Amino acid sequence: MNKIGTYKFVAEPFHVDFTGRLTLGVLGNHLLNCAGFHATERGFGMATINEDNYTWVLSRLAIEMDEMPRQYEDFGVQTWVENVYRLFTDRNFAVTDKDGRRIGYARSVWAMINMTTRKPVDLLAMHNGHIADYVCDEPCPIDKPSRIKVQAKEPVCILQAKYSDIDVNGHVNSIRYIEHVLDLFPLDYYRNRRVRRFEMAYVAESYYGDTLSFYLDDEGDGRYAVEIKKGVETKETVCRALVVFV
Amino acid sequence: MNKIGTYKFVAEPFHVDFTGRLTLGVLGNHLLNCAGFHATERGFGMATINEDNYTWVLSRLAIEMDEMPRQYEDFGVQTWVENVYRLFTDRNFAVTDKDGRRIGYARSVWAMINMTTRKPVDLLAMHNGHIADYVCDEPCPIDKPSRIKVQAKEPVCILQAKYSDIDVNGHVNSIRYIEHVLDLFPLDYYRNRRVRRFEMAYVAESYYGDTLSFYLDDEGDGRYAVEIKKGVETKETVCRALVVFV
Repeated sequence: MNKIGTYKFVAEPFHVDFTGRLTLGVLGNHLLNCAGFHATERGFGMATINEDNYTWVLSRLAIEMDEMPRQYEDFGVQTWVENVYRLFTDRNFAVTDKDGRRIGYARSVWAMINMTTRKPVDLLAMHNGHIADYVCDEPCPIDKPSRIKVQAKEPVCILQAKYSDIDVNGHVNSIRYIEHVLDLFPLDYYRNRRVRRFEMAYVAESYYGDTLSFYLDDEGDGRYAVEIKKGVETKETVCRALVVFV
Repeated sequence: MNKIGTYKFVAEPFHVDFTGRLTLGVLGNHLLNCAGFHATERGFGMATINEDNYTWVLSRLAIEMDEMPRQYEDFGVQTWVENVYRLFTDRNFAVTDKDGRRIGYARSVWAMINMTTRKPVDLLAMHNGHIADYVCDEPCPIDKPSRIKVQAKEPVCILQAKYSDIDVNGHVNSIRYIEHVLDLFPLDYYRNRRVRRFEMAYVAESYYGDTLSFYLDDEGDGRYAVEIKKGVETKETVCRALVVFV
């Protein structure tokens, strides 16, 4: 059981939305922090691998929640490594409510890259494949991240990446993309429904001042596919998201 | 000394800006949370006073920092009540670095209002003036919040309040205003200088869909006064800010 890391949180007042429930952006932030804590405790944290000129890159994130913690409620995050492949590793999460009951799950896919060449590192060759020792068969009963396709030709929103969007690497941070995608939907969507599943595929980095265009397909049944592209004349995909309301 | 509440934090990866230092928005969030913890521990927290149909309203916030914690560094927040008047109370803060050294201070001014009438409550009459027992003469060597005046007639930025801006009361949240104000300045301002002092005067609430216009005066010497107004035809002041770069 010590392959699973367990971390405790409380839903702070500025971390809940107008319905009084934790926001997906804040939950995403906690999940990624827990990934960091868990990896650090096992010798694969950012600080350690940065010394070898390597860094972790988040490729996919899928979150599926039965409910969200309410303002001031305690909640927990459990995380473990499901698979290690040559170029990717799957890290899963469970979210528990104040009583320890599982109220949701998440899946993430990560690559490790060389910070100079930006090329992927062979995870199975690193540290004699030691990372595979942490693989754990804890169940994660939600679908894997899907292939997201967006057909829309006209953006529904255009914005410029600002100071608050930018992380220590000079990139728009992974959590801000989640917030920008959720901001595409009117408040009524959150009043009458809630996001059951959220997926993000991180494709390329964007930077301060980049023009970000948001393309949206309504797939029916509360499913929306979103593509974020950067650039004005020529446009390049930065990420794709799937939002499922119920 | 137990009149002072002390709380511990760590500067998380998504809570630092591109310089690797904690953002002012996140620090502001921690300060307001600590205000909540401290008040709750003394019987004046939101949950308790909400039962009497009262709520705390933040009127002013001034933060002045010698430096900001770096990514992954531990830091602390101390908070205490400086004064209790009939309609306002002054709450101060000190921010300590990983070694416990004070690296900054903050001042805040709060009113308590009746949630139905929106009228202020007499703090000295409440609970037999019990709140005044917590007044503490700990020094807070930064200036009190100033009177901010903005002359500019044309906005430098116009945006609409979105889902992620809105808190559990249905208002644009106090921290988001800080982020929106900081986003008015180009990244170079943060690369070559840093914000030494930040003030916010909260004047009125704004809501989902409100058009927020930002007016900016360059007062010289790195001082910028900002006014946020809501509305399109007739405009009403929502808040005023002062940003001092060094």
